[in-house]
Amino acid sequence: MTTANTERATRTRQRLLLAAAEIFDEAGYEGAAVTRIAERAGLTLGALYFHFGSKQGVAEALMNAQATTIEPHLDSTGLQRLVDITLVWAHRMQHDPILRAGVRLAVEQGSHGMNDATSFEDWRTLMRGLLETAQAEGELEDGVDTDRVARFIVAACTGMQVYSQLATGRADLTERVCDMWALLLPSIAPAAVHANISVDPQQVPAS
Amino acid sequence: MTTANTERATRTRQRLLLAAAEIFDEAGYEGAAVTRIAERAGLTLGALYFHFGSKQGVAEALMNAQATTIEPHLDSTGLQRLVDITLVWAHRMQHDPILRAGVRLAVEQGSHGMNDATSFEDWRTLMRGLLETAQAEGELEDGVDTDRVARFIVAACTGMQVYSQLATGRADLTERVCDMWALLLPSIAPAAVHANISVDPQQVPAS
Repeated sequence: MTTANTERATRTRQRLLLAAAEIFDEAGYEGAAVTRIAERAGLTLGALYFHFGSKQGVAEALMNAQATTIEPHLDSTGLQRLVDITLVWAHRMQHDPILRAGVRLAVEQGSHGMNDATSFEDWRTLMRGLLETAQAEGELEDGVDTDRVARFIVAACTGMQVYSQLATGRADLTERVCDMWALLLPSIAPAAVHANISVDPQQVPAS
Repeated sequence: MTTANTERATRTRQRLLLAAAEIFDEAGYEGAAVTRIAERAGLTLGALYFHFGSKQGVAEALMNAQATTIEPHLDSTGLQRLVDITLVWAHRMQHDPILRAGVRLAVEQGSHGMNDATSFEDWRTLMRGLLETAQAEGELEDGVDTDRVARFIVAACTGMQVYSQLATGRADLTERVCDMWALLLPSIAPAAVHANISVDPQQVPAS
């Protein structure tokens, strides 16, 4: 494809994802009709099938777009970047319908007959990479298992989101993420490193 | 009611909960018909409505029975009891259909039009109580916020269960619970206490 065509395809795909996120949010996954999604996007049903193949294809694309939805525009690296990403995620969960739909579908997928850990494994890989950088930079205590810690952070964020959504409509999600770091940092980072890590929602770019 | 009647009512209720757990597991919440639940329990539809009022009533009862389903028969107290309960929970999630259905419904309830944080708050209250005992016994570091830590553990267990279910059919859930304690104990307990806390799935009664 030419560059112009690629850009148009990307925009079309994004419009369909946003429309699907809105319709899933309003009608639930079971109640969402692909015709309504295409209509909301101002596109044909053919465009939807071309890009995603089926309703489940749209759902899988939403689930697997999570990590790329977090574009933190951050200069931080290593452990600070890992902290920042979770804070950006908590903030965007309250404002970004595509991210919110992806996370919700990933958690509730069992009730829609899906069984796909890909979005969780993508997060784990991304977080493990940041922890490996942190380890190479001497930011971690000796013996920290970067894969196990990454796996735990993905799980903890998943559960905080579910519980926060039910208890407060996600109003306390950022506070919960800060609590997590207050509990984890003393275990994984030496005191001198920990003292220099900022867990401050105010300092993280919102978009 | 007489004692015999109370016991019969408890047994009837338990048979309905077990049948509902099985049918929800097989057919999903949306696909589960109350007639099939009553039939599986060998009881009348009238008995189901008497005890639970509606399908949603059965679902709520399953969600809110989680904590009472964990009857650890443990002699431990305080922090050790909190660790033991999470290990018993991880073990029983693999074998107890009523507990499994309750946890799954609690997590996926949004897709069934429910919005009830009660089961999460019940766990938080139970865990906060154990942490308060631990605090009174000098088992916690100064300044530990028992409510915030309880809230985090409930969330972390929720997320570990979701992720473990999708990634390994819950085969690694116990390992994940052990990882959580390896990360949390250094932050909340002094080294001398931590050294005496056993995080050993083999030593926890299975039932």
